[in-house]
Amino acid sequence: MSVYTEQFDVIVIGAGHAGCEAALASARAGCTTLVLTPNLDRIGFMPCNPSIGGPAKGHLVREVDALGGEMGRAIDRTAIQIRMLNTSKGPAVQAPRAQADKMLYPMAMKEALERQPRLTLRQEAVTDIELVTAGGRHRVQAVRTDAGNRYLAGAVVVTAGTFLRGRMIAGEWRAAGGRAGDPAATALSASLSDLGIRLRRLKTGTPPRIDARSIDFSKAEVQTGSDRPLWFSFDGAQGRIERLELPPLPIYPGITDGWRVQMPCYLIHTNPATHDIIAANIDRAPMFNGTIQAVGTRYCPSIEDKIVRFRDKPSHGLFLEPEGWRTTEVYVQGANTSLPQDVQLAFLRTIPALAEATITRYGYAVEYDAIDSSELTRTLAARRVDGLFFAGQVCGTSGYEEAAGQGIVAGLNAACFTQGAEPLVLRRDQSYIGVMIDDLTTQEFVEPYRMLTSRAEHRLLLRCDNAEARLSDIAYRFGLISRERWEAVQAESRIITETLARLAAHHLSMNPRTAEALERAGLPPLARNQTALDYLRRPEVRYEALASVLEALGADSLSVPSRLAERIEVEARYEAYIEKELARVERIRHLEERPIPDGIDYTALAGLRNEAREKLARFRPATLGQASRIAGVTPGDVAVLMVHLERGA
Amino acid sequence: MSVYTEQFDVIVIGAGHAGCEAALASARAGCTTLVLTPNLDRIGFMPCNPSIGGPAKGHLVREVDALGGEMGRAIDRTAIQIRMLNTSKGPAVQAPRAQADKMLYPMAMKEALERQPRLTLRQEAVTDIELVTAGGRHRVQAVRTDAGNRYLAGAVVVTAGTFLRGRMIAGEWRAAGGRAGDPAATALSASLSDLGIRLRRLKTGTPPRIDARSIDFSKAEVQTGSDRPLWFSFDGAQGRIERLELPPLPIYPGITDGWRVQMPCYLIHTNPATHDIIAANIDRAPMFNGTIQAVGTRYCPSIEDKIVRFRDKPSHGLFLEPEGWRTTEVYVQGANTSLPQDVQLAFLRTIPALAEATITRYGYAVEYDAIDSSELTRTLAARRVDGLFFAGQVCGTSGYEEAAGQGIVAGLNAACFTQGAEPLVLRRDQSYIGVMIDDLTTQEFVEPYRMLTSRAEHRLLLRCDNAEARLSDIAYRFGLISRERWEAVQAESRIITETLARLAAHHLSMNPRTAEALERAGLPPLARNQTALDYLRRPEVRYEALASVLEALGADSLSVPSRLAERIEVEARYEAYIEKELARVERIRHLEERPIPDGIDYTALAGLRNEAREKLARFRPATLGQASRIAGVTPGDVAVLMVHLERGA
Ligand SMILES: Cc1cc2nc3c(=O)[nH]c(=O)nc-3n(C[C@H](O)[C@H](O)[C@H](O)COP(=O)(O)OP(=O)(O)OC[C@H]3O[C@@H](n4cnc5c(N)ncnc54)[C@H](O)[C@@H]3O)c2cc1C
Ligand SMILES: Cc1cc2nc3c(=O)[nH]c(=O)nc-3n(C[C@H](O)[C@H](O)[C@H](O)COP(=O)(O)OP(=O)(O)OC[C@H]3O[C@@H](n4cnc5c(N)ncnc54)[C@H](O)[C@@H]3O)c2cc1C
Repeated sequence: MSVYTEQFDVIVIGAGHAGCEAALASARAGCTTLVLTPNLDRIGFMPCNPSIGGPAKGHLVREVDALGGEMGRAIDRTAIQIRMLNTSKGPAVQAPRAQADKMLYPMAMKEALERQPRLTLRQEAVTDIELVTAGGRHRVQAVRTDAGNRYLAGAVVVTAGTFLRGRMIAGEWRAAGGRAGDPAATALSASLSDLGIRLRRLKTGTPPRIDARSIDFSKAEVQTGSDRPLWFSFDGAQGRIERLELPPLPIYPGITDGWRVQMPCYLIHTNPATHDIIAANIDRAPMFNGTIQAVGTRYCPSIEDKIVRFRDKPSHGLFLEPEGWRTTEVYVQGANTSLPQDVQLAFLRTIPALAEATITRYGYAVEYDAIDSSELTRTLAARRVDGLFFAGQVCGTSGYEEAAGQGIVAGLNAACFTQGAEPLVLRRDQSYIGVMIDDLTTQEFVEPYRMLTSRAEHRLLLRCDNAEARLSDIAYRFGLISRERWEAVQAESRIITETLARLAAHHLSMNPRTAEALERAGLPPLARNQTALDYLRRPEVRYEALASVLEALGADSLSVPSRLAERIEVEARYEAYIEKELARVERIRHLEERPIPDGIDYTALAGLRNEAREKLARFRPATLGQASRIAGVTPGDVAVLMVHLERGA
Repeated sequence: MSVYTEQFDVIVIGAGHAGCEAALASARAGCTTLVLTPNLDRIGFMPCNPSIGGPAKGHLVREVDALGGEMGRAIDRTAIQIRMLNTSKGPAVQAPRAQADKMLYPMAMKEALERQPRLTLRQEAVTDIELVTAGGRHRVQAVRTDAGNRYLAGAVVVTAGTFLRGRMIAGEWRAAGGRAGDPAATALSASLSDLGIRLRRLKTGTPPRIDARSIDFSKAEVQTGSDRPLWFSFDGAQGRIERLELPPLPIYPGITDGWRVQMPCYLIHTNPATHDIIAANIDRAPMFNGTIQAVGTRYCPSIEDKIVRFRDKPSHGLFLEPEGWRTTEVYVQGANTSLPQDVQLAFLRTIPALAEATITRYGYAVEYDAIDSSELTRTLAARRVDGLFFAGQVCGTSGYEEAAGQGIVAGLNAACFTQGAEPLVLRRDQSYIGVMIDDLTTQEFVEPYRMLTSRAEHRLLLRCDNAEARLSDIAYRFGLISRERWEAVQAESRIITETLARLAAHHLSMNPRTAEALERAGLPPLARNQTALDYLRRPEVRYEALASVLEALGADSLSVPSRLAERIEVEARYEAYIEKELARVERIRHLEERPIPDGIDYTALAGLRNEAREKLARFRPATLGQASRIAGVTPGDVAVLMVHLERGA
């Protein structure tokens, strides 16, 4: 039997949200890149909610986009609804969220991969990862596929999602599988075990889908999309993407047609009858009767979990979300469950809008293997095997956006590895992606990790509106964005700086002409003489209105693109906080970035507590900052370490 | 463990091309209908060529459409190219053929199912069919699913395609599966065996898909779509469908934008080098080294089969067909193969346009169980089990269109069965569908059955252009089309009849005014005085031009919709042949429709040859016509049977 062989710089295993970004980043960074996946029709597929973004997740998407990634463009091209969440809260936690057409989103993602130079797609599942050993270190050499082919590679990125020994469960039903419609990856999981990589068992779940025709929408509250343009991607904001849209089915009340056609979502609520049914069947819930042992994420709990944990809450909100322009299937957000199928139907039907609901797909949970976080370095490389990288759900996270954020880093670092170049490490004060990867490689999570704004201590710096400003230098340096784009971002930053300077230089005096101009623009009167910048800090003052007043008073044109107007307001209003935050970052930078040599022998290091010694040996932090965040390492231990490093220096 | 149960009139197992039409027909005929399928994202999926139609297949689609089916509408909505084939040949073999967008076609089909009243979709795989037995007859009662649910039904239609114990093969590689990306249906196959239903093993295959960017299109011959409007569906022709289209990728040369945007296909050719590579590796071809024992269809041979069977042919044509608006994946029509993957790449690369070709998916064959044709009656019911119906690839056919044609009959007859109504049996002189089902239930095919125009002895009557005229009475009677639509078809038929009569009544004389009018319209001069109808019989005379001449000469308006103009030409030109054909049908009708009583005991019937006795007992023909077509039954045997029936009568 002859074996077909081919050589690539980088091989990406899997084409989910992590795999797609990993492959694009690797190819954009100049590597010949092969993507292997068992079904080319399911590239970038959304097995759960066909939705992207929201707080922290939307931030990740903006960062992926700033790094030249595809997720932002794909959702901008295929959204059926986009909204800004948390508009009543501070700028740090505001984030866009969109519903995607579940069929068009993967089509857009596949197209991006197909059109990427140096990137090859092939429909095969990987069964084995082959190593070579030299000087006591293992290094990846090739992968083998179910089709019997062997592909040589300088680096391999594993992004197998929920597929490693995946098992699906609902009530008494269980079946092997990575998700409904896809088989589990059993051989690959075994191959990783064979490499000595520690695996752990996690779980996630999905709600039932129901038939729109069986919903009484008059008993639900309509939520429409944003009435002003909103984009995840830089290209979208610049009017440089081609939208993939279809005419919406006329069966959904509340479709809007403004800056783009948008479909509505619908809010409904559980009630005591719902809770009673779930409580009465809790012994049939796999999460509670011992069938599911793996741990799910607390931040995306199943409905049975919510009922048990918050016994006193009489009602939970659920959202009904259409799955696309041309389908009657509706996703029930908030009702993720692995209860038996009869119970799923019964509890949904207690809700007035769903009294006649018909289920098209039942909810289920999936249990799968993920690698233990101590196996990862902060470049998303495997500790034990050179040239092996991981990203996405296999690293113990949950969520498309988390997967995409890791994908871009792992793919780029795989490319850097083969090129002998310095890897990319994103800092915590620079990006949510940096926070996530740092958390992943310093913390022991018993449940899947989900991004939250509260995890980012510098979140005022890590806003959606400034993602490009934060990351495009890096993106350009690593070849992930074009020179034109980088220059466009620079130009935008210049506009902001200059405009803020002009506002600071413009003095508004309490005279009748100014008062009249302000009044005419609907702006509040001056309380004292002040600069235009100080005046803009008042929350009721919008930049565009102010600019028109200043122009009326004789200033040169101050008009800027509307997304920059918002950024100017934020920078003006939060300047003091932002500066304080930057100063704090500066203060801890010394500690944060102080490198710890790779070979350090913690057993020989006097003064460390035993627990600290063990944890440090396990996670092998790359910096003092990382060491300080490891649970079980106290400030005292960090001090001991610091003294040791000073001595060594 | 409690079992969730629900009751439906009809259950359809599978949502491929047969299942979709079966379910729609059943629901349209008034039955509550449940479709069970393991993956709702793969409804109406095209595992092989994303194309519909062509000779005989296009006829089937036109008939499915005339019977109220969905295939014609779905392809009209999602075609990326439509052409009329065989335009240089007679009207009987002309047929439309279209390329579909591989992702949008299933989306359109799913939408049709979702919007059909009384029809419920549910994502579950059937593992068992349950019977009740009464009076020595078995009858279906329920199905059980992998999810543990039990669904009661009055009738069940099995449309499991290539999934029954499906096994995929390419070279030395093999894997269980119904097709790439989908698991096999092993339990269901066993359940059918348990019911005593004889199964046989068949095979089919698919070619590799290649990356458009690796093709040198300058070395291929561009084939563009029809430059005049062309529709499969009545609704399309009436301007009553909503097209689902996306802007095409700009990478394909030859995109046209006329009555609709269309993508091109490309013709290339194999050469001796191609054939040498295949011949040199023929011992590694599963079809030739004994790995594949099942039989494939002769009319869609694998490339290795073509090379072996037609050794002297120096070249075979292949078509490169884009798989959709937004993908670089290209289907290689004519290169269906189960050769090893290295050989697939090597032989493709011998073709100049493919010298640098990259494969995205390898070709493979699939072996599967199909039911033995002697298990079927001509209503597509199982002989052994009441209320059980079959349609599509499971019946031993090959092709989407064949599947759809059976689907509509099986679904409708399942509905009739639960309603206690007379079933639908389509005659051979009425439709290709009738020919196909008659063939299927009277012939022993060792290979998958594919529709060909040569199988239809009355093909001049069974044209694409008159499908509605042939079938809409039936469609309307069974509730498959609306009264409006039926009336519209009637109105069209009336226009044709009246127009032909007016043409027959209009005498053209050889005078200067007429001569000048004909010349001005670019029509040939009269050779003698004749009716306009006779003049129209000349092949170079187009109806529209003639009508304009007659109007210029003072006739009332003769303008008709353009598709009717073509039908008028055909009816005029082929009137003599058509009438002869109708007379022949009339002559044999007596024999053809003579019923044979169900319980007839062939062993007791003196004068029959032994072989005939055995074959008649096996196929149990419903009519003398059917008996006459059974291989092994001679005209002498038919005479014996006829005498017996006369006596009995
Ligand atoms: C049932 C279910 C419920 C979920 N619920 C939630 C939720 O509530 N909230 C949430 O945030 N997230 C949820 N998710 C998780 C979400 O799907 C993932 O976070 C996201 O898809 C992760 O992206 P990924 O790229 O890591 O993995 P995936 O998107 O799973 O992609 C994995 C890829 O690897 C491929 N692959 C697998 N094995 C092999 C192999 N051997 N060789 C080659 N390719 C292989 C697969 O085909 C696929 O392309 C859910 C997932 C599932 C399945
Ligand atoms: C690899 C391959 C190559 C082919 N090549 C050709 C070709 O060259 N020429 C040609 O004319 N045709 C070809 N075909 C055949 C073509 O795909 C079929 O003719 C057509 O799809 C038949 O339609 P169907 O509805 O009978 O079956 P399918 O389209 O196969 O649909 C079967 C349906 O049944 C469902 N199903 C299966 N098991 C169960 C279960 N237990 N419970 C519930 N649902 C179930 C499946 O999910 C699917 O929805 C090929 C098919 C394959 C797979």
